[in-house]
Amino acid sequence: MIYDREKILKQIKPSKEEIEKGFRLYKKIREFIRKKFNLEAELQGSFIKGTSLKGDKDLDIFVFFPLDVSKEILKKMGLEIGKKVFEEFKGEYEIKYAEHPYVNGKIENHDLDIVPCYKIDKIEDMKSSVDRTPLHTKFVKRMTEFQKDDARILKKFMKLINVYGSEFKVMGFSGYLCELLILYYGSFENVLKNASEWKLNQKIIFEKMEKEFSDPLIIIDPVDPARNAASCVSLQKFSEFIYYSRKFLKDKKFDRIKIEYRKSEGTELIVLNFKTDLMEDLLFPQLRKTRDFIKDYLEKNGFRIYRSKIFNSGILFEFEVFKLPKMKIHEGPFIYDGENCENFIKKHKNIVIIGDRICTEIERKFKTAEECIDFLIEDREGFGKDLKKARCFITKEGIKEVYD
Amino acid sequence: MIYDREKILKQIKPSKEEIEKGFRLYKKIREFIRKKFNLEAELQGSFIKGTSLKGDKDLDIFVFFPLDVSKEILKKMGLEIGKKVFEEFKGEYEIKYAEHPYVNGKIENHDLDIVPCYKIDKIEDMKSSVDRTPLHTKFVKRMTEFQKDDARILKKFMKLINVYGSEFKVMGFSGYLCELLILYYGSFENVLKNASEWKLNQKIIFEKMEKEFSDPLIIIDPVDPARNAASCVSLQKFSEFIYYSRKFLKDKKFDRIKIEYRKSEGTELIVLNFKTDLMEDLLFPQLRKTRDFIKDYLEKNGFRIYRSKIFNSGILFEFEVFKLPKMKIHEGPFIYDGENCENFIKKHKNIVIIGDRICTEIERKFKTAEECIDFLIEDREGFGKDLKKARCFITKEGIKEVYD
Repeated sequence: MIYDREKILKQIKPSKEEIEKGFRLYKKIREFIRKKFNLEAELQGSFIKGTSLKGDKDLDIFVFFPLDVSKEILKKMGLEIGKKVFEEFKGEYEIKYAEHPYVNGKIENHDLDIVPCYKIDKIEDMKSSVDRTPLHTKFVKRMTEFQKDDARILKKFMKLINVYGSEFKVMGFSGYLCELLILYYGSFENVLKNASEWKLNQKIIFEKMEKEFSDPLIIIDPVDPARNAASCVSLQKFSEFIYYSRKFLKDKKFDRIKIEYRKSEGTELIVLNFKTDLMEDLLFPQLRKTRDFIKDYLEKNGFRIYRSKIFNSGILFEFEVFKLPKMKIHEGPFIYDGENCENFIKKHKNIVIIGDRICTEIERKFKTAEECIDFLIEDREGFGKDLKKARCFITKEGIKEVYD
Repeated sequence: MIYDREKILKQIKPSKEEIEKGFRLYKKIREFIRKKFNLEAELQGSFIKGTSLKGDKDLDIFVFFPLDVSKEILKKMGLEIGKKVFEEFKGEYEIKYAEHPYVNGKIENHDLDIVPCYKIDKIEDMKSSVDRTPLHTKFVKRMTEFQKDDARILKKFMKLINVYGSEFKVMGFSGYLCELLILYYGSFENVLKNASEWKLNQKIIFEKMEKEFSDPLIIIDPVDPARNAASCVSLQKFSEFIYYSRKFLKDKKFDRIKIEYRKSEGTELIVLNFKTDLMEDLLFPQLRKTRDFIKDYLEKNGFRIYRSKIFNSGILFEFEVFKLPKMKIHEGPFIYDGENCENFIKKHKNIVIIGDRICTEIERKFKTAEECIDFLIEDREGFGKDLKKARCFITKEGIKEVYD
């Protein structure tokens, strides 16, 4: 679909009723917390910033504690307040874990987080990274109404090209980054125009920078100049955003990019499937670590990987070289090293001399990549911590939705 | 067979009659040259040095010219004398080419070379490398009878382990080198004892050295201290000699080493056969050059060679990776290079972004190593000069006698 700002906004901007409904719920909860616990509460996130997308039902309600309250009390009280809110408004909830535990659940079709934090004015007083969020909200509110809509459009665009989301599954752009980009470059189209000319280690500084960074993209957080707000953006997502920005500037198409996985002709597939109930932010780093470990091992054993991919429940390897001959050359010591040569000769039959090394032919440990992977699954040394225990099985079929 | 000096000598030392027969023939020819051309002639080589092996029928007769004769006259006269010798003694002959042409042929079952050279006393007067040979002969004559026999044994040993011969086919030890080693270390067994402890760039200096060398083995020619007499010894043959020296010192076996070639299980073979009538010293360097060129090209195209071998009429490649999938990843420019990215995108469909490069999948030019070799044989750029025109055909069978 060809880009038309008004048309897009009609599709993606939440209706007045939708917004009012959310606000009504938030205000009721805020009142409840104020009365019951004598604490201030405030909505954070795209809803309050005016940058939310249609259907976005996330309400992040932060409960402020004074700085002189201890962390233990804050944690305990935070959970207490959260639970009470869900009891009062008849919602279902569970305890989730970020830097500290918080209560998450559903009320009136909205997805609610009740997050305790310290009320701070200056970043120096920050005790936990959630304390920074209200400062982000405050900073971003300076956007004009036009810019808020453009932030919505940028988020939608990033979703369509699969670079949206700072979680470990995506390693792309957060909502806050979208807003910062709009504030810095002024408009959606200007963000893309500039991004199309980004270089490696691109730097965006609002006022000042208090530290050096070496990430692909460096966007100094205006409320915390010692922080790179874009540190989670991987080289891959950074590059994809540059690529699709250019593409958009040329064809003005505002369409979903398909990232279906298709096996190449003549290659062999091995898919490792893990059964876990890990949170994605814990799962994906472990999948990547495990993938890198297995990849290294396979390559050291002579196999050649065409592609490897991470997906929701496992790792895919596509092989260029999957099968190898029975024997391989095993290099021994240099001929000048008499003592080690003698030991090598004692150990091996069929000595061959290649250049100035003594070598032998030995049987390969693994004749196929599958044998090699089977072996690694046996003890799982080098696998991600939780994947060591997880149920694991191999299939040879492709997968559709892949990441990285 | 367990080493027994006397037993070995009985087998390898020419009989008195054999030697006398050769000397009689040499003396007749010398007389003929003296009478007919008024020039001195002298036998060179192992025969006159007393280091020849049984059945060795080579007689190298050098005809001496004074230093004031021009090179043209020497060449012309040399050929003239050679031809006349063979006519007089009713032998068959042909013209051969080293640094300058000479006459080679058969008389009374002996293989004769008639080589014209300048008579020099000091190496500084040398006009062509053949002039040096009589100085070598003279130097080596200082060996005791025992040492002459040990030189025979060393030559035989080197032949058995396939390191004898300075020609390009072998790139091993010359007869002269064997004699120098005996002179330097004193006896056959001492040569092996010392060789078993040789290091890379092993240096052997008789009196003085006038130049630095970086060859695997450096034996400064005592009659020409600016020359490494062992420059033709390849790293491979150098190492093999060290290896078999150690082996001999342990088991005292004096046996022929089999170097039969056997294909490994699961690999694929491709043998390039060339039809040429090139002299071996011209053929082998060209085979090696061609082999290295093809090897590089194959590896650049993703194939993996297990072994490659040179043999009398061609080149063998044994493959670990012989077949590859249809497609391959083709790397394009870095994403930051907007202009080149645009050109790349114009040229290729199916752009994929890998890290910060834009890439595409393209069809492989060669899906098998055989297709790749077929392609190279088409125009033969990078092949040895004479192999460019030679008839060439591919077989897939192993060969028995291989070199390097």
